[in-house]
Amino acid sequence: MFELLKTSSLSCARRGRLSTPHGTVETPVFMPVGTQATVKSLTPRQVEETGAQIILGNTYHLNLRPTSELISRFGGLHKFMNWNRPILTDSGGFQAFSLSKLRQIGEDGIEFRSHIDGGKMFISPESCMEIQDNLGSDICMVLDECIPYPCKHEPCRKSVERTIRWAKRCLGTWKERGMMERNILLFGIVQGSCHEDLREVCAQELSKMEDFPGYAIGGVSVGEPESEMLEQVGVSAANLPANKPRYVMGVGTPPQILKMIALGADMFDCVIPTRLARHGCAFTLNGPINLKNSKYREDPSPLDAEVNSYASGFSKAYIRHLVIANEILACTLLSIHNVRFFQLLMEQARHHLEIGDFENWSNNWIARYQSNGI
Amino acid sequence: MFELLKTSSLSCARRGRLSTPHGTVETPVFMPVGTQATVKSLTPRQVEETGAQIILGNTYHLNLRPTSELISRFGGLHKFMNWNRPILTDSGGFQAFSLSKLRQIGEDGIEFRSHIDGGKMFISPESCMEIQDNLGSDICMVLDECIPYPCKHEPCRKSVERTIRWAKRCLGTWKERGMMERNILLFGIVQGSCHEDLREVCAQELSKMEDFPGYAIGGVSVGEPESEMLEQVGVSAANLPANKPRYVMGVGTPPQILKMIALGADMFDCVIPTRLARHGCAFTLNGPINLKNSKYREDPSPLDAEVNSYASGFSKAYIRHLVIANEILACTLLSIHNVRFFQLLMEQARHHLEIGDFENWSNNWIARYQSNGI
Repeated sequence: MFELLKTSSLSCARRGRLSTPHGTVETPVFMPVGTQATVKSLTPRQVEETGAQIILGNTYHLNLRPTSELISRFGGLHKFMNWNRPILTDSGGFQAFSLSKLRQIGEDGIEFRSHIDGGKMFISPESCMEIQDNLGSDICMVLDECIPYPCKHEPCRKSVERTIRWAKRCLGTWKERGMMERNILLFGIVQGSCHEDLREVCAQELSKMEDFPGYAIGGVSVGEPESEMLEQVGVSAANLPANKPRYVMGVGTPPQILKMIALGADMFDCVIPTRLARHGCAFTLNGPINLKNSKYREDPSPLDAEVNSYASGFSKAYIRHLVIANEILACTLLSIHNVRFFQLLMEQARHHLEIGDFENWSNNWIARYQSNGI
Repeated sequence: MFELLKTSSLSCARRGRLSTPHGTVETPVFMPVGTQATVKSLTPRQVEETGAQIILGNTYHLNLRPTSELISRFGGLHKFMNWNRPILTDSGGFQAFSLSKLRQIGEDGIEFRSHIDGGKMFISPESCMEIQDNLGSDICMVLDECIPYPCKHEPCRKSVERTIRWAKRCLGTWKERGMMERNILLFGIVQGSCHEDLREVCAQELSKMEDFPGYAIGGVSVGEPESEMLEQVGVSAANLPANKPRYVMGVGTPPQILKMIALGADMFDCVIPTRLARHGCAFTLNGPINLKNSKYREDPSPLDAEVNSYASGFSKAYIRHLVIANEILACTLLSIHNVRFFQLLMEQARHHLEIGDFENWSNNWIARYQSNGI
């Protein structure tokens, strides 16, 4: 299901192609996040027009509201939200971290208290496969325990062992439910916080479960320094099989993504393009800018002359006016631009991997992006 | 500039065509409102796709922020907001009513205290023409005094006389500035609250100013009963020249619009399609519905199977989920649908005027719309 088209000789960067029930995905790829069955403030058509090949849905949130059963009765998430390209779903494991005050973890799984109405929701390795099957996901994730940072070695080791046991249970359920036969992908998730030896063990144990069509690297970007994050992603990737896609969960800034591609990562997701849009920020090739800044008051230029999107037809001055006036169109135009920015970055990364100068291009790209000290 | 294509024999309804610097407008027409240089929650492309021929901008709001001078330096409102079809602007007179605690009216004009920062803004008949010229409006409005309801005869008479004097001053400025030569349209505004004799006088006095390319009927939908509103619109329209377009300002519900077409009105604007969208409501041929209602939780049907728009591709259940989850896409899809609903209504009204069965069709349309008692 994963074809490795080219591997760099100067780094671990790869150019690949992943097949899913809803079509192929060219890697490296950035996946916009559609937590509640919508990429925030965008229509599915606007998301498609950014060039997005695949989006992410959140199992915990969707199962809470409108529920996976309802989505299943509507023929799955694709039909429910009117998105016909691939969808990747997480397992809920991350919400056990991000909503940590509202959950209890045991060997059987994770019990959540709804962040909306306090109702109970229990997610086990088995039920998380059922939920994702109900959602009609193309790429499912195993249930994992996302460990807070920092975490001492011994509790981290115990948690990683549980994550490995859960991965095995998910793999079994995936087969039993016939999801494997239906070409639905399932990824194991490497945990281990910032303990290299535990990352190694986890990646190696998961690698032994050879039926996984791909692997994710989780538990990063949870508060650790960036240098630590990159080190752990590198160790994790190096211990995963070369012929399977590697997905770094919840990451990251454009420079982080480029650095992780060089470490051998293929897939990324992050809320920052749409979240920063809602805060009035635009990504540009010279670094992010905040449209609230009065210097854009009369700026007739588009957000970034080198980033083509529907938002290119509007001046910074107009978008600044919308931001200041608190108009929804500000979120829409900035989200279109920001999601397009990430797609363009990945298009260029794939191109430079193909022509063999990825590392040089990437270094120059990062240098320009960071030249304003942002 | 206004061509009367057909007049009904059963009512005062007319089918017309209005020429403006940015193209022709088929009447009767409904104009979506873009108060702050955006039709709320929609891109200009989405507004175009509803079939909207012309939109409205608010002089008071735009002059306050980002200011008409800034918009002028950007080549006018069309270029600033990326909308290439006609734009009608009001004069600020209505805001002297709606923001009544923040203004003082004298013979020279209206002094506002900004509702945003308390700063002063003075709008005179002369400056309101300059501001609308700066905005690059296709159809300008004279400065008028929009009288609160109820209003006794004597103060109303004095106010109407001032509105007539202001109309004359606006007409003079419109000519002096060369706006007339540049084919920019200027409409006089009939006031008179619910006093028929004053409406008559006002309409007749304005009609004597023969250079006005059109006339508006203002001071309606300000708290009076609907029967009163219809009566005053009827009296006003009956006293205006037949060969000029008639625009009823700030109105209304679909049945009100149909009834006013029968009274001889040609143009309408109202915020209700986009405002109700933000409250989770959709217009349907069987009356408005609120998507928050739990009965739509699993409803697989579109908002209205007979109203075609981009929003038709989504189920009520999905849009309800977006409303409940407070997602911006709910506003966008409901706004697309609601604005399209009003455009479709006007397309059908024009069609039935052309084939000569407007009154019968209109009565049936209203009966169906109100059949649910809403």
